[in-house]
Amino acid sequence: MSTIISSFAELTAHLASINNRKRIAVANAVDPHTLEAVLKAVDMKLVEAFLIGDVASIESPALFEDHDSAHIHIIDVPEVNEATLEAVRMVKDGQADILMKGLVNTDVILRAILDKEKGLLPTGKVLTYNAALEIPNYHKLVFFSDPAVIPSPNREQRIAMIKYAIDSALKFGIEHPKIALIHATEKANPKIQYMQDYLDILQKWRMGAFGDVVMDGPIDIFLALDKELGSIKNVPTPVLGDADILIFTDFAAANAFYKGLRIFAGAEMGGLLQGTEKPVVLTSRSDSELSKFYSIALACILS
Amino acid sequence: MSTIISSFAELTAHLASINNRKRIAVANAVDPHTLEAVLKAVDMKLVEAFLIGDVASIESPALFEDHDSAHIHIIDVPEVNEATLEAVRMVKDGQADILMKGLVNTDVILRAILDKEKGLLPTGKVLTYNAALEIPNYHKLVFFSDPAVIPSPNREQRIAMIKYAIDSALKFGIEHPKIALIHATEKANPKIQYMQDYLDILQKWRMGAFGDVVMDGPIDIFLALDKELGSIKNVPTPVLGDADILIFTDFAAANAFYKGLRIFAGAEMGGLLQGTEKPVVLTSRSDSELSKFYSIALACILS
Repeated sequence: MSTIISSFAELTAHLASINNRKRIAVANAVDPHTLEAVLKAVDMKLVEAFLIGDVASIESPALFEDHDSAHIHIIDVPEVNEATLEAVRMVKDGQADILMKGLVNTDVILRAILDKEKGLLPTGKVLTYNAALEIPNYHKLVFFSDPAVIPSPNREQRIAMIKYAIDSALKFGIEHPKIALIHATEKANPKIQYMQDYLDILQKWRMGAFGDVVMDGPIDIFLALDKELGSIKNVPTPVLGDADILIFTDFAAANAFYKGLRIFAGAEMGGLLQGTEKPVVLTSRSDSELSKFYSIALACILS
Repeated sequence: MSTIISSFAELTAHLASINNRKRIAVANAVDPHTLEAVLKAVDMKLVEAFLIGDVASIESPALFEDHDSAHIHIIDVPEVNEATLEAVRMVKDGQADILMKGLVNTDVILRAILDKEKGLLPTGKVLTYNAALEIPNYHKLVFFSDPAVIPSPNREQRIAMIKYAIDSALKFGIEHPKIALIHATEKANPKIQYMQDYLDILQKWRMGAFGDVVMDGPIDIFLALDKELGSIKNVPTPVLGDADILIFTDFAAANAFYKGLRIFAGAEMGGLLQGTEKPVVLTSRSDSELSKFYSIALACILS
């Protein structure tokens, strides 16, 4: 890979330039935010959209005007559960590359994804949430995990989270991603349960289990993301102020971190479920249209 | 209390106006950041300072010029451990109202504070860290706990954290503080260990154990701090976008939250140890001079 993608604008420009549309199956895309994000992705040549759902309940049909109808397919399935199952089936059967949640309860789509026979999670795979955050004044995108799915990861789940994030960073052209195992301090307090996970993971890293990447931990947010504040601590770390990937202790920490930055620092997130056969865009109502669009772009480059 | 203090500038102006200097004993105040913060507090009539430590190692003696020497007392104790013990003794014996850490290892001062005979922690009291955060674009200060001391609080520790924070908010003139028990989501997943604590605490709150305050949880950072993003979630909460106090699941979450905002949103924190007989200002090297000054101001109003 020749270029490094360091912002969502660069990501979408890159995807538009390669003109390699991915097929996205959207379960009940009837709410304006989801529809607008999908239509924007169609317009920018990122996707060909299959909108499966209750057409009659689309809040603003006028949205479809002036869009590239050749790449928009509306499939009327009035019942939301059935629409969700059909969207999952399309992905399962190779008729779509990406699954996206529209106006469907998270429980409903998760149940469909987790179905042993017809679902999308291969046996033994860890289902987790992998996200990229664009923070104004940070010099690149930073991947972080997991703000949404696994409340308190165990060691195997942490390892899976790290591997998904590394795969993502590599696809963004980052040759040797720098991974920070985040904690409140750089002191490895052995009384804290997740600390043993961190130490084991670092041991695995030293033995090459994660490939040619840089990893350090426990370190705090200052050491991971700010050269100046990190330097004051006098803790030598190869990550210093330049992390590509943040692995948090649990989802409460990851969640509070990004939501604070979303409100007060203008940060935008793109995120998706990983572990599934194909990427799943599973945004929530409080995510902006932009965030949904970025999540689609992330799914395009990772699918 | 007639006025509400909603920023650090208002806090220091209020303290200057009442001209009620507190006596602060600083253990080994030889580093420029600590000295500058203390001298600023002297100049603003917040404190009378007792600087106990190795005078010969003061990096910039010129700092003392042009300051109010009548309220600065330099006590030469060349050995750092002894200086720390002497500062603790002064507070213990009522010769000072506030203890502050200078260039001393945290372990050393904590050992002195925790000493059963000569220390400052009454039997049965919970030692925790209580902090106020000023975030540009949030309409007031927000207290939060605990980013530094208790890795994973138990129920009794959470209750103590909440009570200290309520006491602080009341001293800032907030009559009915709004307390958010923070989590990644508003769904109370019973499988997560701290969730039972939250539910028990809410039950106690309903029975009046915390006085005339508003409390809700689990809620996320959007619901706690942003009316617009919180409203999208359609979760009715009396805290909506107006929290005075954030109680985090553990110190990793509180720490990541504030450090992200410090770097990328220009947030400033003042904080101190609570549970001790008198407030203890225990800042770290990566805290700014301003943050150390705000911590002193916080100790003044809480002592």
